[in-house]
Amino acid sequence: MDKILRINMGNEGGPKASEEPLGDYAGLGGRGMTSAIVSKEVPPLCHPLGKDNKLVIAPGILSGSVAAQSGRVSVGCKSPLTGGIKEANSGGQGSQVLARLGYAALVLEGQPKDDTLYKIVINKDGVEIIADNSLKMMGNYDLIEKMKQEYGEKVACVSIGQAGEMKMAAATVAFTDMEQRPTRHAGRGGVGAVMGAKGVKVIILDDAEMPKRSPKDPEKFKKANKAFVKGLRKHPITGEGLPGFGTNILTNVINEAGALPTHNFQTGQFDGASKISGETQTEIMKARDGLVTHGCHRGCVIRCSGIYMDKEGKYLTKRPEYETVWAHGGNCGIDDMDAIAMLDRLDDDFGLDTIEMGATIGVAMEAGLAKFGDSDAAIDMVKEVGKGTSLGRILGSGAAVTGKVFGVERVPVVKGQALPAYDPRSVQGIGVTYATSTMGADHTAGYAVTANVLSVGGTVDPLKPEGQVELSRNLQIATAAVDATGMCLFIAFAILDQADTFNALLDLLSAFTGQECTADDVTALGKQILEYERDFNKRAGFTAQHDRLPDFFKTEKLSPHNITFEVKDEDLDQVFNW
Amino acid sequence: MDKILRINMGNEGGPKASEEPLGDYAGLGGRGMTSAIVSKEVPPLCHPLGKDNKLVIAPGILSGSVAAQSGRVSVGCKSPLTGGIKEANSGGQGSQVLARLGYAALVLEGQPKDDTLYKIVINKDGVEIIADNSLKMMGNYDLIEKMKQEYGEKVACVSIGQAGEMKMAAATVAFTDMEQRPTRHAGRGGVGAVMGAKGVKVIILDDAEMPKRSPKDPEKFKKANKAFVKGLRKHPITGEGLPGFGTNILTNVINEAGALPTHNFQTGQFDGASKISGETQTEIMKARDGLVTHGCHRGCVIRCSGIYMDKEGKYLTKRPEYETVWAHGGNCGIDDMDAIAMLDRLDDDFGLDTIEMGATIGVAMEAGLAKFGDSDAAIDMVKEVGKGTSLGRILGSGAAVTGKVFGVERVPVVKGQALPAYDPRSVQGIGVTYATSTMGADHTAGYAVTANVLSVGGTVDPLKPEGQVELSRNLQIATAAVDATGMCLFIAFAILDQADTFNALLDLLSAFTGQECTADDVTALGKQILEYERDFNKRAGFTAQHDRLPDFFKTEKLSPHNITFEVKDEDLDQVFNW
Repeated sequence: MDKILRINMGNEGGPKASEEPLGDYAGLGGRGMTSAIVSKEVPPLCHPLGKDNKLVIAPGILSGSVAAQSGRVSVGCKSPLTGGIKEANSGGQGSQVLARLGYAALVLEGQPKDDTLYKIVINKDGVEIIADNSLKMMGNYDLIEKMKQEYGEKVACVSIGQAGEMKMAAATVAFTDMEQRPTRHAGRGGVGAVMGAKGVKVIILDDAEMPKRSPKDPEKFKKANKAFVKGLRKHPITGEGLPGFGTNILTNVINEAGALPTHNFQTGQFDGASKISGETQTEIMKARDGLVTHGCHRGCVIRCSGIYMDKEGKYLTKRPEYETVWAHGGNCGIDDMDAIAMLDRLDDDFGLDTIEMGATIGVAMEAGLAKFGDSDAAIDMVKEVGKGTSLGRILGSGAAVTGKVFGVERVPVVKGQALPAYDPRSVQGIGVTYATSTMGADHTAGYAVTANVLSVGGTVDPLKPEGQVELSRNLQIATAAVDATGMCLFIAFAILDQADTFNALLDLLSAFTGQECTADDVTALGKQILEYERDFNKRAGFTAQHDRLPDFFKTEKLSPHNITFEVKDEDLDQVFNW
Repeated sequence: MDKILRINMGNEGGPKASEEPLGDYAGLGGRGMTSAIVSKEVPPLCHPLGKDNKLVIAPGILSGSVAAQSGRVSVGCKSPLTGGIKEANSGGQGSQVLARLGYAALVLEGQPKDDTLYKIVINKDGVEIIADNSLKMMGNYDLIEKMKQEYGEKVACVSIGQAGEMKMAAATVAFTDMEQRPTRHAGRGGVGAVMGAKGVKVIILDDAEMPKRSPKDPEKFKKANKAFVKGLRKHPITGEGLPGFGTNILTNVINEAGALPTHNFQTGQFDGASKISGETQTEIMKARDGLVTHGCHRGCVIRCSGIYMDKEGKYLTKRPEYETVWAHGGNCGIDDMDAIAMLDRLDDDFGLDTIEMGATIGVAMEAGLAKFGDSDAAIDMVKEVGKGTSLGRILGSGAAVTGKVFGVERVPVVKGQALPAYDPRSVQGIGVTYATSTMGADHTAGYAVTANVLSVGGTVDPLKPEGQVELSRNLQIATAAVDATGMCLFIAFAILDQADTFNALLDLLSAFTGQECTADDVTALGKQILEYERDFNKRAGFTAQHDRLPDFFKTEKLSPHNITFEVKDEDLDQVFNW
């Protein structure tokens, strides 16, 4: 992982690949790498779909090693959805394989001369860029099946569906999972539209005959990994909750907390929650012989993923995540688990962010396009997106555009990106993250649900403004650092609660890189990444006024707690004042 | 004109009107009044369609007097199109009549409880607010015909068409002209959507038995008005060009200058220009017994308006303005004058900004929805907007949203508002205005075409960056002041070139108000208004980064001059540094 692969899609004589040493980017990984490159190389006022934007795909510092949970990949660019910097994070096999191919970053640059569609094949022999218009407007599932036929069962694929080709702002970049299915997505901010604008349909990564990445201190590394895994297995969330019920274990928890945004953020509890909870989901999956617990990439020991079969016992989709179940479920008033799974499948196939799509359908329902609870209408809407009809184009542009087009006032977005599955009125800490994150509303940017609801990493009353800014600040810093390591963010539960697990992570990093890594170093890394991002956004025209929740969270009281978002603007402005 | 009329559409017991003295707003008029009220009373981060936005309708300082050209009205709010402050300016009868009713401002506030549609009748006896759902989804033409039946031929109407009811960001507020037709529009920035969001379909203004507004010094006023009129008649543009050929006299002039944006700003000259020029237009109008020259409001001596008959000699629309002819003509590659007139008619009927719609259709054509030059397709698109289909909703949201929805990179907007009829590459002074105006791209905010092309108020080479910032600055200041007086902006040609005409304007103001008005006072007024607006926009999150043209004006050379926009960012940042 000692070089950067740049592919200039706008090269005069046709797309061209070139390798270069890491230079100033040496030592960076994941979000650290993507945000550094975007911040330094992309003009902040450029058009996100134009020649000056770059799509950066970067494995984490530990990716490609045998460290547990190290298979996350970062995808960065200027976001077509927010207009600011973007890092969208995904699981799947891509990170490990790209790292073993030796690339610390793959950068798609320039603008193709025409609408030819390309596939890029990267293996031990080098890089091939192949025009292949037969792939046009294929869904991710068919596309990956075709790639499997052509390149075998062991390659990892990075791809876009129809949404990315149509340059929709809700389009994702898909990464294949261990079963070589396109179920893991760099979901947020329209990164798939940027890949589409570069004319790249799919990147085939083949690490055959490439070695695993070796740590500088193998003994220390092995020991640290063992302690790390032990820590993950010991913590109730990473050791029991997530493996047993997937991320959807949260439906009952968040609903109980009165923080499950229902009917486009009108109430905080959903009558149908028990019908779509992780517990119910697991029962359904078991009854249909689905796989209840497995990892989304090799080396995962949390194994929160699973496989969801349809009523006939045939594969339908991976286990829909909590955010998806919420977005298409409670938020749209839908309590039919099979309908939600179908929506998940369609989103994955078209290459759409499930959070953005669920929030968008909620806004469309508020606009009167369909009734809350109408799952057939929701499925039809997503199909419209895949077809690229006028309505589909609107919805595929996300909640902010949909709200604007239909004249809706209650549109749950920050910086143009839809709010995820926790109402900021009853989880005020996550509201601080939504408002201030460089990414637009993003729960993963500083998951204050930990101390607000789960009593992880301490406790902070979720209904009061006190302590939320500090909580969000610390989490945003820590998260930026974790996103640089290639580690799955779910390690946070264990490292926040268990000092020895956190130390094991530090040891993993130290042993791997050969450079002593302290807690202060991790903090400094997180701050550095946030500063790259804040600097880019400032140059793109973002101000404190963009670090705000929509009005209605401050004026409409949310049941059952009858509470508004109470953190003051001047306190929000202190989040990055460290 | 000594009071403000506020109508709270969200009042508990139903909409309620109340009058109040001018207080701090005493002495203000037109844009001075709207921008002061919006800046002081509207929370800059509120949703434009929500309860906290206000729609302010204000006659100018001289409106309602017998001063020539004093019939302009300002409509202000937070713009649904730009998210910033908005003043949209219109001719027609409304300004004079509202002024004679004694109101320096009419403010629509609050948010209606349901979707009941209201009409508001204002006459010497007071204000009536009447629920009338029979008006729902009427076009402006049918609506005004109905109002004529109910309230007689002498009332002035202020109304919205279907676009305003659907809260589209390209929706206008229409003002009836001297023939009581809804042909004059406060066009830009979606002010009609805000009126729609207030639940108000039409305001009927009846000044029967109300006196003309009297000057403090009638003799001086009469004398000044005479000199002022003489000056307007003497200047070749206001005395000959505009009365003879309407604003569309510019098509040949701007095309000749290589500054007529053609095919969505791809080239600077249009092959079909002569077929849609003011000269051709006038011939067609004469041949069909149309009215070639008349005023849009009583007291107009420039008389640039006219009446355009269809092939059968029946009324079709008012004489389409230059901006409209360009937007639907050259910009879309359409050289059929009757098709352009039909588009003008449809825009007026649905209540749509012709500039925004033409620019939007240009973007849609670039996206491949129709071929440039296809006038039937353009007409169909505007009809879709009127019907509110999904495609229509997209287009009715303006060029920026249309570009986003269809993934188009070349979208000619600043702050979300479409560029008007002068390419900023070959008229670099107007480019400075587009980039920096508080309004989003707006030619009327600082019409540098004067010195750049028309040799009015001096000459500044249009193809070079030198001198453009100072030119735009001075014009933006002067324009803000003129927009406060209620005077038609076309007086600028005469007052820029003729010192005695400018002095006559100062005398008119002094004699009317009884307070000596100097050139310095006018400058101070203009600066004060811009400062209100800049302050609002700053608090709404706008920065220097928003005072920029889209990338492609800086990278794509425009024929025939093969030139890009050359004014540097740091120079743009000096426009408001006085």
